Amino acid sequence: MSTRRFSHSDPELDELYSDLSTEHLQPLWELKGLLTPTPTVASVPHRWSAAQLRSLGERSGRLVGIDRGGDRRVLACANPGLGGAPYAVSSLWAAVQYLGPREVAPAHRHTPAALRFILEGSGVWTLVDGDPLAMSAGDLVLTPSWTFHEHHNPSDEPMLWMDVLDLPMVAALEAVFFEEGPSEDVERLTDPVSRSERSYGAPGLLPPPAERTTPTRHSPLLAYRWADTDRALARRLDVTGAGAATMTYVDPTTGRDVMPTMRCEAHCVVEGASSPRIRQTGSRVLTVFHGSGVAEVGEQRFDLGPGDILAIPSWVPWSLHAHERIDAFSTSDAPVLHALGLYREQEQP
Amino acid sequence: MSTRRFSHSDPELDELYSDLSTEHLQPLWELKGLLTPTPTVASVPHRWSAAQLRSLGERSGRLVGIDRGGDRRVLACANPGLGGAPYAVSSLWAAVQYLGPREVAPAHRHTPAALRFILEGSGVWTLVDGDPLAMSAGDLVLTPSWTFHEHHNPSDEPMLWMDVLDLPMVAALEAVFFEEGPSEDVERLTDPVSRSERSYGAPGLLPPPAERTTPTRHSPLLAYRWADTDRALARRLDVTGAGAATMTYVDPTTGRDVMPTMRCEAHCVVEGASSPRIRQTGSRVLTVFHGSGVAEVGEQRFDLGPGDILAIPSWVPWSLHAHERIDAFSTSDAPVLHALGLYREQEQP
Amino acid sequence: MSTRRFSHSDPELDELYSDLSTEHLQPLWELKGLLTPTPTVASVPHRWSAAQLRSLGERSGRLVGIDRGGDRRVLACANPGLGGAPYAVSSLWAAVQYLGPREVAPAHRHTPAALRFILEGSGVWTLVDGDPLAMSAGDLVLTPSWTFHEHHNPSDEPMLWMDVLDLPMVAALEAVFFEEGPSEDVERLTDPVSRSERSYGAPGLLPPPAERTTPTRHSPLLAYRWADTDRALARRLDVTGAGAATMTYVDPTTGRDVMPTMRCEAHCVVEGASSPRIRQTGSRVLTVFHGSGVAEVGEQRFDLGPGDILAIPSWVPWSLHAHERIDAFSTSDAPVLHALGLYREQEQP
Amino acid sequence: MSTRRFSHSDPELDELYSDLSTEHLQPLWELKGLLTPTPTVASVPHRWSAAQLRSLGERSGRLVGIDRGGDRRVLACANPGLGGAPYAVSSLWAAVQYLGPREVAPAHRHTPAALRFILEGSGVWTLVDGDPLAMSAGDLVLTPSWTFHEHHNPSDEPMLWMDVLDLPMVAALEAVFFEEGPSEDVERLTDPVSRSERSYGAPGLLPPPAERTTPTRHSPLLAYRWADTDRALARRLDVTGAGAATMTYVDPTTGRDVMPTMRCEAHCVVEGASSPRIRQTGSRVLTVFHGSGVAEVGEQRFDLGPGDILAIPSWVPWSLHAHERIDAFSTSDAPVLHALGLYREQEQP
Repeated sequence: MSTRRFSHSDPELDELYSDLSTEHLQPLWELKGLLTPTPTVASVPHRWSAAQLRSLGERSGRLVGIDRGGDRRVLACANPGLGGAPYAVSSLWAAVQYLGPREVAPAHRHTPAALRFILEGSGVWTLVDGDPLAMSAGDLVLTPSWTFHEHHNPSDEPMLWMDVLDLPMVAALEAVFFEEGPSEDVERLTDPVSRSERSYGAPGLLPPPAERTTPTRHSPLLAYRWADTDRALARRLDVTGAGAATMTYVDPTTGRDVMPTMRCEAHCVVEGASSPRIRQTGSRVLTVFHGSGVAEVGEQRFDLGPGDILAIPSWVPWSLHAHERIDAFSTSDAPVLHALGLYREQEQP
Repeated sequence: MSTRRFSHSDPELDELYSDLSTEHLQPLWELKGLLTPTPTVASVPHRWSAAQLRSLGERSGRLVGIDRGGDRRVLACANPGLGGAPYAVSSLWAAVQYLGPREVAPAHRHTPAALRFILEGSGVWTLVDGDPLAMSAGDLVLTPSWTFHEHHNPSDEPMLWMDVLDLPMVAALEAVFFEEGPSEDVERLTDPVSRSERSYGAPGLLPPPAERTTPTRHSPLLAYRWADTDRALARRLDVTGAGAATMTYVDPTTGRDVMPTMRCEAHCVVEGASSPRIRQTGSRVLTVFHGSGVAEVGEQRFDLGPGDILAIPSWVPWSLHAHERIDAFSTSDAPVLHALGLYREQEQP
Repeated sequence: MSTRRFSHSDPELDELYSDLSTEHLQPLWELKGLLTPTPTVASVPHRWSAAQLRSLGERSGRLVGIDRGGDRRVLACANPGLGGAPYAVSSLWAAVQYLGPREVAPAHRHTPAALRFILEGSGVWTLVDGDPLAMSAGDLVLTPSWTFHEHHNPSDEPMLWMDVLDLPMVAALEAVFFEEGPSEDVERLTDPVSRSERSYGAPGLLPPPAERTTPTRHSPLLAYRWADTDRALARRLDVTGAGAATMTYVDPTTGRDVMPTMRCEAHCVVEGASSPRIRQTGSRVLTVFHGSGVAEVGEQRFDLGPGDILAIPSWVPWSLHAHERIDAFSTSDAPVLHALGLYREQEQP
Repeated sequence: MSTRRFSHSDPELDELYSDLSTEHLQPLWELKGLLTPTPTVASVPHRWSAAQLRSLGERSGRLVGIDRGGDRRVLACANPGLGGAPYAVSSLWAAVQYLGPREVAPAHRHTPAALRFILEGSGVWTLVDGDPLAMSAGDLVLTPSWTFHEHHNPSDEPMLWMDVLDLPMVAALEAVFFEEGPSEDVERLTDPVSRSERSYGAPGLLPPPAERTTPTRHSPLLAYRWADTDRALARRLDVTGAGAATMTYVDPTTGRDVMPTMRCEAHCVVEGASSPRIRQTGSRVLTVFHGSGVAEVGEQRFDLGPGDILAIPSWVPWSLHAHERIDAFSTSDAPVLHALGLYREQEQP
């Protein structure tokens, strides 16, 4: 019997509650904690250490074939506050993926959207709907909702990157679809510039409107290169003059977030400086690309270095303090909060 | 220890799994059911009967004061598939609210948005940010996200209506805020036309752009009257020629859904006819205003009459068959599915 | 030789100017009045009197067959400031059209968009892409860009209405296209409600998104009835509390102007009151439906009564003063000024 | 007497026409050429030669001070078909501007929007609302509607570029405003990267939404550098595989045209190849940056080389044929045609 029973010392009320239960009804006045002054947040601040992620990734690479299940060798961050669910924060899946030399993770597609931020190495290609995207350290690579994608490692070195997916949201909305795909023979695996970049990768320039791809809900630009991000952060630092800057990855055809469910951001904090202490509705996952320092998340402090992954729950103030200049990447569910009229942001003293 | 432990007969793997668990990581290849060919749906088709809702509402009215908790006398539909959660379907709260003679449900506001569809009676006013909205049978009344609202029953009769809220989604995104409000002395409680209708209630006519209210995420029109809906359905039936028609309630300043999280629709099916059998991603709650017939939801059939409430889970085909002409009202999370690029709809044979 | 010659007393300059002329070049420093502090306005305030329009319309009806030229019996308002061009103001064509008993103005279409505001009478139908729109006093009827349209007068009475077209703008952009069309046998000429109104004529209600007509640049609602306009003005007067109110006709699927080139507005001013004295970039044509009073346009005053047509040039302050309650209709090019970022509006003391 | 008189051999008609004229009315059936099957186009194909433009610019520089009138030393292209109006095509002003060593063209602003395409040289700065934009060959620099702008030539060399303005359209809409501005002491005149480029000049990266400049009707990126354009054309050529490619300059925050009235495009045609022969509603001005070849515009052929300016009227088919690889820049009124629903494009055999 799944319906909750409420009880009361008053026999008449008790009988009402029993009849309500029989009818699959619940009395609002006995329900607590539904409408709270500020959000009830399940996930907790947490850091996964790069050393552990790499070491456990390598052990998995030795012990587990890529075809073992799910066709991907992935270690999912499971937030300690979420009761065993394999989610880094309430609304986002985050994981490290380990692809050994000569391995191929075969083609499939799913409605949950994914992105990859490459922490180190190079030489792996992700194919998205037939367009080979070279993956190198610092790059952001998108595999949007319902696009076929596969990963190829033709090199002699293993490679490891961070995956982020909107899976918790898509699952909560009961809209997960999945399909295996035909893997492709790809001759263009040596082209460092993807087809998507050839048309959509220039600053302030696009193909003529009639030649653009049919508008989709995601960016037609699928790979964002670190060299561009690095230069953009440096230039933006000059404008903010604050020792910290953030740039948002956008769909160049709309200026909106790269995908409808996830905002991607690059952050830098120069040596000795701090990023503003803010809190936002919605959850965030952050990883460090370069540098080191400390993250304050609510009451907690975490030492941070390259490759560490950090969970920042909803409405918890956070900031970064750089011992040496930090370059970091984060993903949040901000586009969803915006779309639903639920986004709030506060700078904290 | 909240993190899941995986185990294996291979000792090396078992040790890996143990170390993963310590580090709050989970091996994707051991997780089942994450990416399914079609959605995994938790809620089940269910009907709450009008007779029970009314009778239990009345008993609650006798036994429980309105100030008992939550400031509302509300019976929440708890879908039998949701393990005791007070939600009618996975993404929507639905409930009946019972307000006795001379009662006032005091002012508050919350980020979850609400709507009221009045099943019978009249004489109650809902104030939304100071604008009194008369409530009569067949009307739709909005209390959008973060608007102060209160209910007044100055009459000698109790009144009962259906509430629908987007609470499950706002809670999942950890964005619930709540605030009590100053209740107002309202002199205009006898005005059958709200301020919102005076400016935004005409077909194809709006105040000049410079005089419109600052754009918000919800309709500035807050009350939709049954007489208009009834005429619109009749006219639309002439166009479809199919014995069934649906009209969507919209924000007249944008043509979009009345609120960013919930689509509201009026349906009619003439005697002897059926609505198309469709399935959609996302969940729906439907109630009957007039008429009777049968709802097919997946494999199940439910007799339907005025005031019954029906839960239609994601991706389950459904249709209505009218014994006598049915007028019905439904709310779904379709705007969210659309905004996130996850909406799919199929007509079923 | 069409190129302008500039001359100068300095022989060297004179030779330069001569050479410039040969090369079809002009020296900016000799051009005057290109960039003026405020707009240079060619058209002048003017009123065409209803009595003259009706009488000359009737005489044309007697003397000139409808097939004489242009397939329409139309008298075009020619602003005295425009040097003989047949335009009421710089950017708008306005005219009265006279259709005799049993006459039919045959089908054609053109890229200039047109609208009809019916000053008196009833019984005429305009077909727009096959949808018959009954025309009665006070109604607004649209024949958007490139839609086939024809007018039928099956009655025994002649009928006269005001046409407004965006022809000057479309001609200036060199984008006029024209095509004769197949006139249709129309059985539905007795239906007082058009197909467009059946689907798009209800306040705050639309067909479901998937059933709406493919989005176009114009409103799918093609007829706006006086009864709705009248009630909307009355209700809006209650909100403004100023003795004057304006409502804008909109596309119900977007809340935007009914067509991309012309804004349509209904105005009322109660007895003894005045509308705000404002000036706006862009031109306007106004006609009176009911009532009488005085229009101030710049320095000029015009007595106004039913059926008079008034030209209000760009950036000239204007207001209406009602001796008896005035209901008026106006069209302006405001959507173009808005789209191009050129709209300015000022309230004048 | 500005009103046109129509006359007729029939005395009754003649009297009617006389009375119409008195009332400032014109009979549609006597007006010819208003609604034509295809556009009536006033401007004609024309080429202004680079050699003449440079030579006449230099002579003007010697003979005419910059403060002589209009504060700019500008030679306006006057299309031979426009009866002496100083417009290159019906809807666009095009001109060459010549700024001598050490000269400053002082600050002003106007509602007509302007853009500069630099044909040769470097060392001049345009300040737009205080942001110094270095100007070098191949760059596009925007001075959008109502932004203060001034030009500084601190070098020892004169400089010459092409100006394009939407003046004909703004004048036709009677919305020209002009204001002199305070010229600024600018210390940053040595910074090769403008403030606008620091925030908006990276591919697929923008400041976070809350840090972006308030949305305006124009691109916040004000300078587009040739190096980026050149690379974008090269990459796009790989995708089209046709020997010709076009890229559109866009507002990176929206993907839309850089200004609401003018589309800017870069074209390249490789040696021996041709661009597609197309015709479009709306007018275009094109200039060659590199290379040489032939332009076919309607029935006419023009030899083209660097710095030549070409007028392409509405609805006239045109294409480029490259003897040596052509890089060209063009501006058209396409955004206006699009906004008003009047854009048509046809590929011609």
